[in-house]
Amino acid sequence: MDYKASGVDIEAGNEAVRRIRELARETFTTGVLSEIGSFGGLFRPDLSGLVEPVLVSSADGVGTKLKVAFRTGRHNTVGGDLVNHCVNDILVQGATPLFFLDYLATGRLLPEVAAHVVAGMATACSENGCALLGGETAEMPGFYADGEYDLAGFIVGLVDRQRLVDGSRVQPGDRLIGLPSAGLHTNGYSLARHIVFETLGLTPESTPTALGGSVGDVLLRPHRSYLRLVAPVLADAPGMISGMAHITGGGLTDNLPRVLPAGTAAEIDRSSWKLPPVFEFLQDQGGLSDAEAFRTFNMGIGMVVISAAAKTDALLSRFRQAGESGAVVIGCVTAGDGTVRYV
Amino acid sequence: MDYKASGVDIEAGNEAVRRIRELARETFTTGVLSEIGSFGGLFRPDLSGLVEPVLVSSADGVGTKLKVAFRTGRHNTVGGDLVNHCVNDILVQGATPLFFLDYLATGRLLPEVAAHVVAGMATACSENGCALLGGETAEMPGFYADGEYDLAGFIVGLVDRQRLVDGSRVQPGDRLIGLPSAGLHTNGYSLARHIVFETLGLTPESTPTALGGSVGDVLLRPHRSYLRLVAPVLADAPGMISGMAHITGGGLTDNLPRVLPAGTAAEIDRSSWKLPPVFEFLQDQGGLSDAEAFRTFNMGIGMVVISAAAKTDALLSRFRQAGESGAVVIGCVTAGDGTVRYV
Repeated sequence: MDYKASGVDIEAGNEAVRRIRELARETFTTGVLSEIGSFGGLFRPDLSGLVEPVLVSSADGVGTKLKVAFRTGRHNTVGGDLVNHCVNDILVQGATPLFFLDYLATGRLLPEVAAHVVAGMATACSENGCALLGGETAEMPGFYADGEYDLAGFIVGLVDRQRLVDGSRVQPGDRLIGLPSAGLHTNGYSLARHIVFETLGLTPESTPTALGGSVGDVLLRPHRSYLRLVAPVLADAPGMISGMAHITGGGLTDNLPRVLPAGTAAEIDRSSWKLPPVFEFLQDQGGLSDAEAFRTFNMGIGMVVISAAAKTDALLSRFRQAGESGAVVIGCVTAGDGTVRYV
Repeated sequence: MDYKASGVDIEAGNEAVRRIRELARETFTTGVLSEIGSFGGLFRPDLSGLVEPVLVSSADGVGTKLKVAFRTGRHNTVGGDLVNHCVNDILVQGATPLFFLDYLATGRLLPEVAAHVVAGMATACSENGCALLGGETAEMPGFYADGEYDLAGFIVGLVDRQRLVDGSRVQPGDRLIGLPSAGLHTNGYSLARHIVFETLGLTPESTPTALGGSVGDVLLRPHRSYLRLVAPVLADAPGMISGMAHITGGGLTDNLPRVLPAGTAAEIDRSSWKLPPVFEFLQDQGGLSDAEAFRTFNMGIGMVVISAAAKTDALLSRFRQAGESGAVVIGCVTAGDGTVRYV
């Protein structure tokens, strides 16, 4: 009897690690001091010019969007979903990423699948100037169905304390600028899959007209990173932004309150942006109330940037100049009890 | 139709988050600037006195030791396994922990189970002076069997670059000091469970004489943290330690080479320590070769500290004074090709 007979294939693991190591090396920024495979990843942050360095960290998963990857056999996008989700989570506090680590757990490790997943992470890490510093690849027989895996990510970024964005400057009268999402991003997939695959009996190849594309393509659209759009503003005009919310699980309804100071609320004008087809489709076909839909899906808004009214036009111009034509005022901050009201 | 009907219970999730938040708050050290629930966790490291701060980070899981937790219904130890595993992984490079984040994924979230798991993490974080800064609790219907979950951890620590322990000072003649493990720690569980539950048909309540305790107790013995033993030496006598290896998956055979410089090898004297009963039991009952056993299990040695021969006695004395009576020289570094030879 040996370890392989018990379901753990150390050689397959080593092969996966070799491939991962090559992919990760391409993401290495100047701060990286270690090679993948050392016990811990070593990163020397550039602290020059920072008065009071603050590390900002977040852990995330991809949720059951993974099931769509399994069903379509397309494993090269979920890594980017994970990285971009993490990048946005620390960006809303004003931080830019230093490094990222992943946890990839499978029942039986397939080095090609692992390589696709990690390639997606590595590409997104490079796009965000973030080193893929390390990770854990775990083969856990009996835990995951054949061909399935779970994926978690962990990011560390840096911000000077005086540049922290924590929403404390948000006040009534501020405008809510919505930045478009690319689709569901990484939230609401249990419900979306239930509607699409179970209720409607569609397959990934189905192309219902109202959806605007094939089920597989639309559901796998990658989570956007807003770093390139927002970081330049934070760097040279931080006063333009008073708060930000990443619209993830819980939608606008639950995520906006996370940055609303006591005594304020948010009012959102539903008519200020057009719902992308996938959200209309899911709401119609699932018979979802507005309340349920706006608490489950991002409904086309992946990030909200809050800005003083006097600065909003200038900020919108910057976003548009940077190529984001879909940035739009979707509402405003009011006095209130910390809730989101849709009008 | 609503999100709960699709298998995701946001209220149960919120209840779990409330409990987790209370547990985490008790671990907060002075560096923590954020509350659990903000998009990212905020940590201000104390950099005073450091010439060139280096962040050391690691990601880990608990592996199929979780299956033993499921089978016994004891969910309060795996969190400590995970934290201590992560702490040791960065300790071997000379770092002390700043903060930890977790990823806890379930099929259907049971707030009591989540609270037990997180309580185990929080206790271990406090013991290691490490803040439980945040995490992700994911409910993923259809991913995990009822009552099951997966767990991953991410740690960030700090070391001054001049205090980095990377094995580069290791040289032939150095002694290998073994620090005792408490049991299997978090590696080799797929094989151990196969032998114990499938081949032998034992239950967690079985108490085979040769095992030295019940199957459940022995297999759940927590992963030790070596921080309290090693960190004081690193702080006031760093020259005593030339390298360290955390003995995890791959055993002594695969982990020692990770800190051996080119042109060196390790020679281990099998008779220098007594195998704890659980390893003799597994090797006997599983019919495992020495090669297989020493590449799968830690065989009673959880950490190897490498020390120049002239400093070894003083280092052993320090470990013993700190209460570790089991620290023992298990071998030495030789010239060679980076492998481990057992004599």
